[in-house]
Amino acid sequence: MKEIIALRLAALRMKMLSAGIAAVIVPQTDPHQGEYIADHFQVRRWLSGFTGSAGSLVVTADEALLWTDSRYFLQAADQLDGTSIILMKDGLPDTPSITTWLNSHLAAGSAVGIDGNLFSVVETDSLRTNLAKNHITLTTDFNVIDELWEDRPELPGAPVFVHDVKYAGETAESKIAKTLAGAAEQGAASVFISALDEIAWVLNIRSRDVVCNPVATSFLYLSPAGSTLFIKEEKIDAATAEYLKACNVTTAPYASMADFLAALPADATVLVEALRTSGRVLDLLGSRAVVGSSPIPMLKATKNDTQIEGIKRSMEIDGAALVGAFMEMESMVRTGSAPLTEVGIAEILTRHRSANPLYFDDSFETIAGYGPHGAIVHYTADEQSSSTVEPHGLLLVDSGAQYLTGTTDITRTVCTGTPTEQEKHDFTLVMKGHIALACAIYPEGTCGMQLDVLARQFLWREGLTYLHGTGHGVGHFLNVHEGPHSIRMNYVPATLRPGMVTSNEPGLYRAGVHGIRCENLVLTVPAFSTEFGNFYRFETLTLFPFDRSLFDLSLMTPQEIEWVNAYHAEVYSRLLPLLTTEQAEWLREKTLPL
Amino acid sequence: MKEIIALRLAALRMKMLSAGIAAVIVPQTDPHQGEYIADHFQVRRWLSGFTGSAGSLVVTADEALLWTDSRYFLQAADQLDGTSIILMKDGLPDTPSITTWLNSHLAAGSAVGIDGNLFSVVETDSLRTNLAKNHITLTTDFNVIDELWEDRPELPGAPVFVHDVKYAGETAESKIAKTLAGAAEQGAASVFISALDEIAWVLNIRSRDVVCNPVATSFLYLSPAGSTLFIKEEKIDAATAEYLKACNVTTAPYASMADFLAALPADATVLVEALRTSGRVLDLLGSRAVVGSSPIPMLKATKNDTQIEGIKRSMEIDGAALVGAFMEMESMVRTGSAPLTEVGIAEILTRHRSANPLYFDDSFETIAGYGPHGAIVHYTADEQSSSTVEPHGLLLVDSGAQYLTGTTDITRTVCTGTPTEQEKHDFTLVMKGHIALACAIYPEGTCGMQLDVLARQFLWREGLTYLHGTGHGVGHFLNVHEGPHSIRMNYVPATLRPGMVTSNEPGLYRAGVHGIRCENLVLTVPAFSTEFGNFYRFETLTLFPFDRSLFDLSLMTPQEIEWVNAYHAEVYSRLLPLLTTEQAEWLREKTLPL
Repeated sequence: MKEIIALRLAALRMKMLSAGIAAVIVPQTDPHQGEYIADHFQVRRWLSGFTGSAGSLVVTADEALLWTDSRYFLQAADQLDGTSIILMKDGLPDTPSITTWLNSHLAAGSAVGIDGNLFSVVETDSLRTNLAKNHITLTTDFNVIDELWEDRPELPGAPVFVHDVKYAGETAESKIAKTLAGAAEQGAASVFISALDEIAWVLNIRSRDVVCNPVATSFLYLSPAGSTLFIKEEKIDAATAEYLKACNVTTAPYASMADFLAALPADATVLVEALRTSGRVLDLLGSRAVVGSSPIPMLKATKNDTQIEGIKRSMEIDGAALVGAFMEMESMVRTGSAPLTEVGIAEILTRHRSANPLYFDDSFETIAGYGPHGAIVHYTADEQSSSTVEPHGLLLVDSGAQYLTGTTDITRTVCTGTPTEQEKHDFTLVMKGHIALACAIYPEGTCGMQLDVLARQFLWREGLTYLHGTGHGVGHFLNVHEGPHSIRMNYVPATLRPGMVTSNEPGLYRAGVHGIRCENLVLTVPAFSTEFGNFYRFETLTLFPFDRSLFDLSLMTPQEIEWVNAYHAEVYSRLLPLLTTEQAEWLREKTLPL
Repeated sequence: MKEIIALRLAALRMKMLSAGIAAVIVPQTDPHQGEYIADHFQVRRWLSGFTGSAGSLVVTADEALLWTDSRYFLQAADQLDGTSIILMKDGLPDTPSITTWLNSHLAAGSAVGIDGNLFSVVETDSLRTNLAKNHITLTTDFNVIDELWEDRPELPGAPVFVHDVKYAGETAESKIAKTLAGAAEQGAASVFISALDEIAWVLNIRSRDVVCNPVATSFLYLSPAGSTLFIKEEKIDAATAEYLKACNVTTAPYASMADFLAALPADATVLVEALRTSGRVLDLLGSRAVVGSSPIPMLKATKNDTQIEGIKRSMEIDGAALVGAFMEMESMVRTGSAPLTEVGIAEILTRHRSANPLYFDDSFETIAGYGPHGAIVHYTADEQSSSTVEPHGLLLVDSGAQYLTGTTDITRTVCTGTPTEQEKHDFTLVMKGHIALACAIYPEGTCGMQLDVLARQFLWREGLTYLHGTGHGVGHFLNVHEGPHSIRMNYVPATLRPGMVTSNEPGLYRAGVHGIRCENLVLTVPAFSTEFGNFYRFETLTLFPFDRSLFDLSLMTPQEIEWVNAYHAEVYSRLLPLLTTEQAEWLREKTLPL
């Protein structure tokens, strides 16, 4: 492997030399500015051998460097070992940014090459401006990977299917009309969309192109006169083609997008979103581009009644599957009938969930971390690392599924034996934050950053915290992470509105000891209206008990205890109809009042 | 008055006509982008007759309109009545912005005139860009007021004096050096400062140019080779001139600033801050301007040990004065010896405070609102409106003073009779928020928007809120409102750092009924450091009891009651040495445990 990496880098450097490129930047994304990407687009992985989901590679004539964040320091060091690639630890005070590094290592007059498809409008502008300070130019059409990567995986070819309006709750026609109306308000007659989940949402189509994300690799041009979906055409069967035609959408080859945009009339006005559209698309559109705000993220985030009903149904299905899975796991640990491993947990969960006909896929790769592994926030067990769960300590399980009726995402932390005082203390602090956020009432216009402290306050009082966000938006039978809203320590201006689904997932991670995270999904609903305006609250959607043995009642208020008891009573009554007698008895015990 | 306004507008319109200006915008600020301004700069007041502290006037050939916010709707309607000026209620959904209004009322090709000294770089750019969308040009040198306003007040002439380093805690030389070092990091060799409180801070000078703000009207150019203070030179006596000379600062006439900037060498690099420097200054500097971030606001906001000690001393002086004042007021209401009026309250407070030799001025105009007047957030009583306080209902008193050792700002809401259940309920909800914020512990890097909910959460639960910020920065013997930090529902990126002084002032205003606000100043101090980083907390600085009769203990947790009791015990012990026997007995009763 080390030798192969060296050969690939050498081949790239030949191309750089002949094109007069002093350095190339290879990011971890695709032409859709995706967070999760198909194998076809895993260029950085292919070139570097590093498999993490975040990180950029920089290659010059005599150096190669990989920037990645703290989640991947260990993994990257391991995977880069023996290659000539230097690990740059992003986020540490002494690590320069890629631009700073390039500015201090390249001579004035040099050219940096990128594939302009892989950098958003904002990223491209920022890169160009910053390099210009040192008189370095940016070449945005340096795209040589196809020539170098002989066995490059094909673009995904799985069929596209229609997400029935009985699940989606709104027709594609209606969504297209709303999107075009939002564009018209910004002075644009048409819209160009690169983001795969936005395309899936607006057309009510799905596929299997990205692991756990039921999207179809495509671009979409919407216009009142008729729309065009750029997609590998073998993905579209006759029925889907007919459906699209009825929506006034024709299909064209994925690669024909560039020619199509270049050939638009000079007076076309095309809305593009600067953060989710590539610099190359902007170049193709030229003065026809209206750089603005896509109406889709907010429309997509505020679920309609059909979606909400479906999500609630999904939560019941998911909760019942989790009862089966956790009973099985508990039995394995208690009886020692077979070793329960972290890798095995993922298999058990998927098996129980996939028994339901509405199940389509997992919504992300299960995170099952036992003991110290629980403290590694983005831990994914593999055969090498996989621990065996013993009848003591904490087990953190974060998992979810894609059902046709909705997407789930739940984390439970359970003690597999008798909890220690420390375990109970830590767990209870996290739960107090979870409960405080779940009980929040807030006025219209509130954004997530304002509420974040509710989940952290009890940890902060003891000098503890967690570094991830408290809540992310969740798609409907779509990406488990979606915008525009979130609940976190950083400012994100999108306000919380009725119909939005958000996770509520405070945690605490003691390195080398254990990790705790308690996650439910919550729905923003109206609370009441007064002379002071409209107020909203959260309705908890997820249905599965928290581990009763881990609560330290001495740290809790009567209101907090009552919240847990009421939640557990609802979990029991909602899941009961879906359970066997044995399962019902198990759940009854798990949901007894504290 | 109505006729005079008509004549002034007519004279302005003559000037507009001859200059080819279709509309003029007159904002409520000065060339220092000040919030509070000297009489000399009260152009909008002179032209419109409206005396509120916020609002912009727009005059066209046949219309005149005044935009102001909800605080001033009633006052503006009253003061504009009978003039031709139309009130534009800023912030209401149907009210267009000034730019939108101009774009829809002026013909393409028109020119809008402003005095470029009165609009910041950011405001000027935004105005120019937005008007250009409708092909309207912006003329930034339309400054005709001097010619129109015959009896225009002089620039303030009060003497400048040195704020002794025994109070300031750091020499001007040291502050200048830090400021220049901060500029050098941004590639600027010198700094141009327009903000009056920044100039006062960096040079350790004070004056009386703006009501309640001990600043001197001036501009300051800082450079390693020597600095220049542009100021009405009669304000500088020999001793101050010598002091400035020792700081390597020479003085020059206030009006000579423009020629000085225009004559700087072509290779000069001058840091200016886009929000607190006028567009005209930027025009004068041209390519010599380095638009960046002034290092001063953060340096000024983080008080040194001498300042903190002085502030604590100021709080003792202020608290003792308040004991005298509130005793006097209470006695008037109880015995009926003389009527206590809202206007009278301001006089009583100033009389008690000014008895101390460290007292310099009030820090803002006292807000004393009895009953329904308390619900008008920026209410200031005048002889006409002034209510007489009766032995029932709520009285809100917001006041503060400038001491040489520090600036105070305190609000207390007291019941002058036996409180109703509603009064106790409302007061207790506000206090619960005040206490929650006072007890917050938060990690390094936290900004005010993250903590704001702590103060609002109990109100929100009942559909209540208040629309002002929860906390503002407070200067040290300087402006009672200062940045860069704040605690509010809006995002302000400055983080809370040790040494910052902030108000903690949640409130509740029931229109027509009563207003409640509970305000202390708090200091950010280190709490502890753990493996998760540095954590900070607030130390309450203000020393005066809250009205014990207004607490509804049934709504409070034991911890909240304990906080009040501990706070009251500290108030008593800290103020006792400064009180007469009679005062001490009064305070003892006011600080008995709940």
